[in-house]
Amino acid sequence: VCQMHKVSKLQKLGNIIFSNLLQFHCSSVIVLSGCGVYDGTEIHEASAILVHLSRGGAEVQMYAPDIPQMHVIDHTKGQPAEAESRNVLVESSRIARGKITDLAKLSTKDYDAVIFPGGFGAAKNLSTFAVDGKDCRVNGEVERVLKEFHKAGKPIGLCCISPVLAAKVLPGAEVTVGHEEEEGGKWPYAGTAGAIKALGGKHSHVDVNNKMVTTPAFMCETELHHIFDGIGAMVKGVLKLTGK
Amino acid sequence: VCQMHKVSKLQKLGNIIFSNLLQFHCSSVIVLSGCGVYDGTEIHEASAILVHLSRGGAEVQMYAPDIPQMHVIDHTKGQPAEAESRNVLVESSRIARGKITDLAKLSTKDYDAVIFPGGFGAAKNLSTFAVDGKDCRVNGEVERVLKEFHKAGKPIGLCCISPVLAAKVLPGAEVTVGHEEEEGGKWPYAGTAGAIKALGGKHSHVDVNNKMVTTPAFMCETELHHIFDGIGAMVKGVLKLTGK
Repeated sequence: VCQMHKVSKLQKLGNIIFSNLLQFHCSSVIVLSGCGVYDGTEIHEASAILVHLSRGGAEVQMYAPDIPQMHVIDHTKGQPAEAESRNVLVESSRIARGKITDLAKLSTKDYDAVIFPGGFGAAKNLSTFAVDGKDCRVNGEVERVLKEFHKAGKPIGLCCISPVLAAKVLPGAEVTVGHEEEEGGKWPYAGTAGAIKALGGKHSHVDVNNKMVTTPAFMCETELHHIFDGIGAMVKGVLKLTGK
Repeated sequence: VCQMHKVSKLQKLGNIIFSNLLQFHCSSVIVLSGCGVYDGTEIHEASAILVHLSRGGAEVQMYAPDIPQMHVIDHTKGQPAEAESRNVLVESSRIARGKITDLAKLSTKDYDAVIFPGGFGAAKNLSTFAVDGKDCRVNGEVERVLKEFHKAGKPIGLCCISPVLAAKVLPGAEVTVGHEEEEGGKWPYAGTAGAIKALGGKHSHVDVNNKMVTTPAFMCETELHHIFDGIGAMVKGVLKLTGK
């Protein structure tokens, strides 16, 4: 059974709590990693996060590191476009409609929560996970931000592949990146789950101790509106954990 | 008053009808124009259309013309990146996660409806509206597709700026692109509404005779979840008009 069903139940339970959140102004960061699933942020995950934060009455500011992308993937071919190079901040600004800031300028004290959408950008630009697996390096600013929010007791939301970032820099964090078994193609990134385990993370959706909420999103091959709803549950979980 | 409120009412009314649609398989085309509001498809409009079509049980296939973009805009600066050139089909495939086809191969008989998200790509790549206003040319394949769906009595959904395409190639079509007055910044593209009028189109949301449904989306400066819901109303309107 796809974990999305569990998320759906969580979401229904969260509705009552959520309606109380509307009168408060929570402010959340979204950290982007480019624009496009194969070399940047997964577009529909980022968009869903923004819609759910908007509905929850949260203020949002987007950030991305001002660094070159690992490479540019021609998404029609799934192959690198050898002659091209693009910048993570500049491409991320397509999702942000121009309203984006260099991650190096993020001041944790100004925000109540941080959310990382998925997409291979998390594993290629925000870390070297796509190349190095459990021995990956995490971008210095990403590591700083994760550690600062964690230390400040502020919630962290993570989608799809991005939990590997938390698993790497926050030992003991309980994160999920889908199932360990493929189940006939339903969980095509099942191998990643194994790698996360090797990093010391466990599978789960809400890690209350670490104030960390994860959702598999496109890790689970399901219909888009289920992914959208799963991300909604994650966002609501994050907003709830802010205590605002 | 922002037209979004009207759309919200429409949406509530549409819920009963919509629940009956779930047992049928409608199949819809989405025509993309790149990836990013200032030189391509508005990302959040495309994503919202996909979520709502998914929830409505519709099958979706995305198409884009295989042509160069008018230019590439650095979205952090709002300025053209002079040295760069990108292809509309290739960039659109970022939104489509690779599953996209050249618009020249679209066969109208295979689908029940077609939807055009907004973004300046509609006015720069699918037409020359951004440069030529009411004297614009519309891409030949876009014109063919619009005329074929219209002639076949199949519904056409249009977001934001994209109604200019229908207003140009389908004389007599009633379309809306926001308000004629800026109302203190709420309708920053108010001038476009005037241009649409000059093209012969009128303001409205549902043109039952022409089976055309429009939503202002980002034309109205409102919160993202209202835009998302407005697009939901448009998608439901389109699915309803398919009669499936």
